[in-house]
Amino acid sequence: MARLIEVDDPTDPRLADYRDLRDVQLRRALETEHGLFLAEGEKVVRRAVEGGFTPRSFLMAPRWLDGLADVLSRSDAPCYVLSEELAEQVTGFHVHRGALASLHRQPDPPLDAVLDGARFVLVLEDLVDHANVGAAFRSGAALGVDAVLLGPRCADPLYRRAVKVSMGAVFALPWTRVPDWYDALPTLSARGFTTVALTLAPDAVPLEEAVAGRDRVALVLGSEGHGLTTRWEESADHRAIIPMAAGIDSLNVAAAAAVACYVTARR
Amino acid sequence: MARLIEVDDPTDPRLADYRDLRDVQLRRALETEHGLFLAEGEKVVRRAVEGGFTPRSFLMAPRWLDGLADVLSRSDAPCYVLSEELAEQVTGFHVHRGALASLHRQPDPPLDAVLDGARFVLVLEDLVDHANVGAAFRSGAALGVDAVLLGPRCADPLYRRAVKVSMGAVFALPWTRVPDWYDALPTLSARGFTTVALTLAPDAVPLEEAVAGRDRVALVLGSEGHGLTTRWEESADHRAIIPMAAGIDSLNVAAAAAVACYVTARR
Repeated sequence: MARLIEVDDPTDPRLADYRDLRDVQLRRALETEHGLFLAEGEKVVRRAVEGGFTPRSFLMAPRWLDGLADVLSRSDAPCYVLSEELAEQVTGFHVHRGALASLHRQPDPPLDAVLDGARFVLVLEDLVDHANVGAAFRSGAALGVDAVLLGPRCADPLYRRAVKVSMGAVFALPWTRVPDWYDALPTLSARGFTTVALTLAPDAVPLEEAVAGRDRVALVLGSEGHGLTTRWEESADHRAIIPMAAGIDSLNVAAAAAVACYVTARR
Repeated sequence: MARLIEVDDPTDPRLADYRDLRDVQLRRALETEHGLFLAEGEKVVRRAVEGGFTPRSFLMAPRWLDGLADVLSRSDAPCYVLSEELAEQVTGFHVHRGALASLHRQPDPPLDAVLDGARFVLVLEDLVDHANVGAAFRSGAALGVDAVLLGPRCADPLYRRAVKVSMGAVFALPWTRVPDWYDALPTLSARGFTTVALTLAPDAVPLEEAVAGRDRVALVLGSEGHGLTTRWEESADHRAIIPMAAGIDSLNVAAAAAVACYVTARR
């Protein structure tokens, strides 16, 4: 059972994991250095623990204790209990759904473990926006993706905003970073995946056609602004497009991911 | 040609349209009272003017004047020119892509005008989040929607964040509010549209099946949290679902809109 510890001083050093959650720069440094990440909201906290992540601590207002009683009963981490006003002073914003947990990161699993048994892999090269990463995970989990691979520079799926937008899908789907950016797609091809890059390249075919009848597919998306790097665009087995209305040449990357997952799952 | 007016006092009353853009409450009151809305960024400002909206004024740093020269040349509204630092003091945030315009709202067009010639209408009952409204317009415009109808309480497509996320699609797609909430869907059925509500209702069929072979379709989405009202759910001709992975029962509404538009456009 988690130890309940009432706190009435927002500068208490034991709350260090929860400081200034809106300061992206500071949080990145702090979370990397200490190997932690945050989950926010009763549902997402529960999914993080059920996904196998070990809590370092919890922080919540008293009224959230009951709803998370089952989660707290299975942990021996401290649970800091404080008023919503004090929690806001610590985190720097009003915490929706009141409960937070700080959890230990785990080393990225090896590629083999993530690909084991997967028939549909979503590959995100360089997404910059944490909300888009979270949205891609959420849509992927709902629409048939088995695993996610990330380029070396892709935004962190365990950053708080990504976790929240994903509704915890970042804990449910296996994922890892590709070990070798340059040969990431040929490596997947060599393992029996048809790699399909979403792009506006001149030889792009409609996505439905590119994935039709394929067994194992890796669907590859680039960054919000510039799309895929030339290397990934050219080293994919196929270049594909979501057909769009005349005069319009782009969808938001989260919308494109959702449509592309839907189409690929029905190949 | 727009009159260029250099401003060096951020409290200048002529800049009133651009004050405190992050204060949602204040902006709603101000924009409603004065019948205005804001467009942000060179591309979106241009699309607003090309979409037939009349500028009240422009506000930009000197380096954006060239890129918008063609737009400014066709307007006789004042263009307030000030440094990016001063612009930030007026608006309360760092203006990406530097240019803003304040434009006159127009009365909502009549339903007949919006439906004229339309075969695929997207109907948003009660979206709360401006970004989701903007995303639905952007995906809709890209994926074959001819017109958009909004429930009386749906968030405003001309609110700055909606305009921005839509990339200007709110100026390109015809849209209006439904005049009668209670009979909104039967009214569409009477005009020859098959109304298809996205819902988790027990009699929901896969969307692809619900729209197959239909001529005119109205695709109906509810709010982020609770989905459609019972009245709309029950008064639609069909209830439909986007098939999802086991154990997952929802997509983000913007992702659902994108997938549903893709499927419906291919009916």
